[in-house]
Amino acid sequence: MKVTPWEVEGKIDYDKLIKEFGTQKIDETLLGRVKRHAGDLHPYLRRGFYFSHRDLNLVLDDYENGRGFFLYTGRKPSGPMHIGHLTPMILTKWLQDVYGVNLYIEITDDEKFVFDRNAGWDKIDGWAEDNIRDIAAIGFNPDKTFIFRDREYIRHVYPLVLEVARRVTFSTTKAVFGFTNESNIGQIFYPAYQTIPTMFEKKRCLIPCAIDQDPYWRIQRDIAESIGYKKTAAIHSKFLPPLTGIFGKMSASIADTAVWLNDDEKTIAKKINKYAFSGGQPSVEEHRKKGGNPEIDVPFQWLRLLFEPDDAKLEKIEGDYRSGALLTGELKAILIEKLNKFLEEHRKKRERADVEKYMKTGKLAQKMWETHY
Amino acid sequence: MKVTPWEVEGKIDYDKLIKEFGTQKIDETLLGRVKRHAGDLHPYLRRGFYFSHRDLNLVLDDYENGRGFFLYTGRKPSGPMHIGHLTPMILTKWLQDVYGVNLYIEITDDEKFVFDRNAGWDKIDGWAEDNIRDIAAIGFNPDKTFIFRDREYIRHVYPLVLEVARRVTFSTTKAVFGFTNESNIGQIFYPAYQTIPTMFEKKRCLIPCAIDQDPYWRIQRDIAESIGYKKTAAIHSKFLPPLTGIFGKMSASIADTAVWLNDDEKTIAKKINKYAFSGGQPSVEEHRKKGGNPEIDVPFQWLRLLFEPDDAKLEKIEGDYRSGALLTGELKAILIEKLNKFLEEHRKKRERADVEKYMKTGKLAQKMWETHY
Repeated sequence: MKVTPWEVEGKIDYDKLIKEFGTQKIDETLLGRVKRHAGDLHPYLRRGFYFSHRDLNLVLDDYENGRGFFLYTGRKPSGPMHIGHLTPMILTKWLQDVYGVNLYIEITDDEKFVFDRNAGWDKIDGWAEDNIRDIAAIGFNPDKTFIFRDREYIRHVYPLVLEVARRVTFSTTKAVFGFTNESNIGQIFYPAYQTIPTMFEKKRCLIPCAIDQDPYWRIQRDIAESIGYKKTAAIHSKFLPPLTGIFGKMSASIADTAVWLNDDEKTIAKKINKYAFSGGQPSVEEHRKKGGNPEIDVPFQWLRLLFEPDDAKLEKIEGDYRSGALLTGELKAILIEKLNKFLEEHRKKRERADVEKYMKTGKLAQKMWETHY
Repeated sequence: MKVTPWEVEGKIDYDKLIKEFGTQKIDETLLGRVKRHAGDLHPYLRRGFYFSHRDLNLVLDDYENGRGFFLYTGRKPSGPMHIGHLTPMILTKWLQDVYGVNLYIEITDDEKFVFDRNAGWDKIDGWAEDNIRDIAAIGFNPDKTFIFRDREYIRHVYPLVLEVARRVTFSTTKAVFGFTNESNIGQIFYPAYQTIPTMFEKKRCLIPCAIDQDPYWRIQRDIAESIGYKKTAAIHSKFLPPLTGIFGKMSASIADTAVWLNDDEKTIAKKINKYAFSGGQPSVEEHRKKGGNPEIDVPFQWLRLLFEPDDAKLEKIEGDYRSGALLTGELKAILIEKLNKFLEEHRKKRERADVEKYMKTGKLAQKMWETHY
């Protein structure tokens, strides 16, 4: 297996990853504390989709002691968004609602630019606009959420970016990100900017992200305290399995492995029926006799991770599939219906989303445009 | 000898430097063309203080063909300024007056910050303010000159900085600037910003600078055309000899080797009499007999390079010194008087300087604050 911020390959052993990365498992004690605060647990937490963390316990301490914390997530505008891109946003919203905290969302147009020699600003700006609309559709608190593009906000953070940059050697970036002598100096510098929103407040920052983004926060955690900020905390998700099989990561670069937020009903049905990797048997007869294997069945896993929050209903689906009572086509049909309903609602929210509030006119946005770091 | 943007050591062989750096000698033909345009030649040019160039011939072609050009110089705000820091500014003003062109002056506060781990913004900002006042005192055309601090102007240039950065590998910066794996990522990124003012206009840029700054422009010249700009031109000066000897470079880090713009009359007299390296003989008798050696005499060289523009007067001083008619103390007295007069005038101009015009309200400054690259 290979896991870096830019590459995920092979079958992922998540317990091994926790050891390799030096993070902690999200255990029952922690989940119990969150449940006490929230009244319930988001399915992503309940079902172990978010499985690893750094300092989540300290975040919860800070909350309980009245010191508070804040949230940070981001998006590289490198194309249209798929379902996998939305999952950290969905958990982030849930956390914002539960804890009533500020949230910063960084749109890393500069990252896209320096990592893709062929990308022009026109294209990146188009994607940024499109992605921001998808993100705004999530329904974050408009007075406690600030969405910004790196290129537009640089003037406000450049001194702090440099404060981080002068503490990070090329050696460190080689070790952490695998840069080489042939990496360009824009790529090498970029990680400094990505750490900055963790310092937007003096409180502790909590970052919901996929586990492959962890290296960025290692750099932050190495230097934050020396410049007067707290080490950032993070909670890490597993990778959403691609349509075509439960290994690896849903990838924007292989269109068929992903479900896009603008896929229409017909496309969804076709994609799931054609590409979704099934744990069922080759023939109906065999399936009725032997039953399917939900562990490797992508439609079932998607229901479990994303689209069937009701535990009782999920359990029934699982049992029926395992017994052979539920056929592959029927399981897929359940997913198709759920997925299309989700996307239809998302697109409605997208149309209504007040992007301006998050970026300029909301209370937090206004404050951020008056702030210089 | 060793010549990099951060270090100048040993006796400099300027002909060898031209070969090593791959620049061109400023020859009589070129000087003749400038003289035709200006009516006269600035002493720095007439006396070979500016000795090397890249594409000055093309700049003069552009001028003669009506395509025009523009000027760019800069200052790292790392402390108070000395006489040596002012010399490129003085020639730049002369060129602006002769050719009536725009001038951009970059105050590289970010460079200072990333190259000096101990420097705080308060201190750097204080130096920047002080330096800008010294620069404004030169009397550039207030409607054709834009002085800006990197930190304040970053929002306007960040996309173009990234456009350069993504074309420069770490390997290149290693070769050109001698960066190592232990260089910080702020240092590694910085050269991209320093190239940017060469692209403020689509015309050709001309940079008057000391020869040790040439590496920055090599990077610019490698990529400018691929992103739609002209390769920058430059004219290079020799190093102003430090007070203590004619080798090396006047250094801000050894206070006694430099004359500071805020040195008072008494300090100047004391410094020159005590530290200025003399080409005279140990005793008056011996000096009268053998005469002095103006080639290695710092007071004479300073008069030649900076403070005695009148060729006839300079020739007389040289002859008298060589013959022994002029004593070391008398030669130093001439320099002390000239220097104090220069500094007194400079300080008056400094008080009157309208910094705001260059930075915000002049015609060019206004235009630049409306421009995004």
